[in-house]
Amino acid sequence: MVSPADSTRETGTTFLPKFDEKGLLSAVVQDVETGRILMVAFMDAEAIEATQETGIAHFHSRSRGKLWKKGETSGNVLRVEEILVDCDQDALVLRCRPAGPTCHTGATSCFYRKLEKGVLQPVKP
Amino acid sequence: MVSPADSTRETGTTFLPKFDEKGLLSAVVQDVETGRILMVAFMDAEAIEATQETGIAHFHSRSRGKLWKKGETSGNVLRVEEILVDCDQDALVLRCRPAGPTCHTGATSCFYRKLEKGVLQPVKP
Repeated sequence: MVSPADSTRETGTTFLPKFDEKGLLSAVVQDVETGRILMVAFMDAEAIEATQETGIAHFHSRSRGKLWKKGETSGNVLRVEEILVDCDQDALVLRCRPAGPTCHTGATSCFYRKLEKGVLQPVKP
Repeated sequence: MVSPADSTRETGTTFLPKFDEKGLLSAVVQDVETGRILMVAFMDAEAIEATQETGIAHFHSRSRGKLWKKGETSGNVLRVEEILVDCDQDALVLRCRPAGPTCHTGATSCFYRKLEKGVLQPVKP
């Protein structure tokens, strides 16, 4: 397959997701209400398609090597309101409305700590 | 090297960045003022160290295979105010104060388009 030119990806209106050699790209989940970043994961073509079809965020689990509907067991799904695409189309931002805490630890966001003077400190829940 | 247990990474105060097999982790840049996501890139141990030492965001350029000080040529550096770490420590959020547009296209954010009905539409600058 011929790869689209960088300029086509940057200026065009065609969605041409640029996957890495594993068929993945980065996906950042942002709470559409608070602006807070909730999690970062990876998507493949299958996850993008499932997300577009259902309106619920799907990712590719690298550890399990398969499609992962976030919240499938916990019920804490992420309703996708908007999908932003970056210049070279190798990263997406999913602007979502979370049904509950996003992190499997029960935290609102997976980013519940900050690095301060070399150690991790809790941030507001 | 023995890998730290997941629980140590999730609950501890020790910064134990979890790199993939290429020695990389995901880094999301968020504007500390507006909350807008400006870019997504990758960091290796060297980039994390350079960022911590200088307070200016450094990444690992996958295409050039080397340390990349964002804004080195354009002057549009990212001053890092806060570094957030996720549960399994394989992703970071750099909360930054950008010196200028973050995207090489001149856009404030690399995420200047959204996916709508299958095509890319501009978002507010």
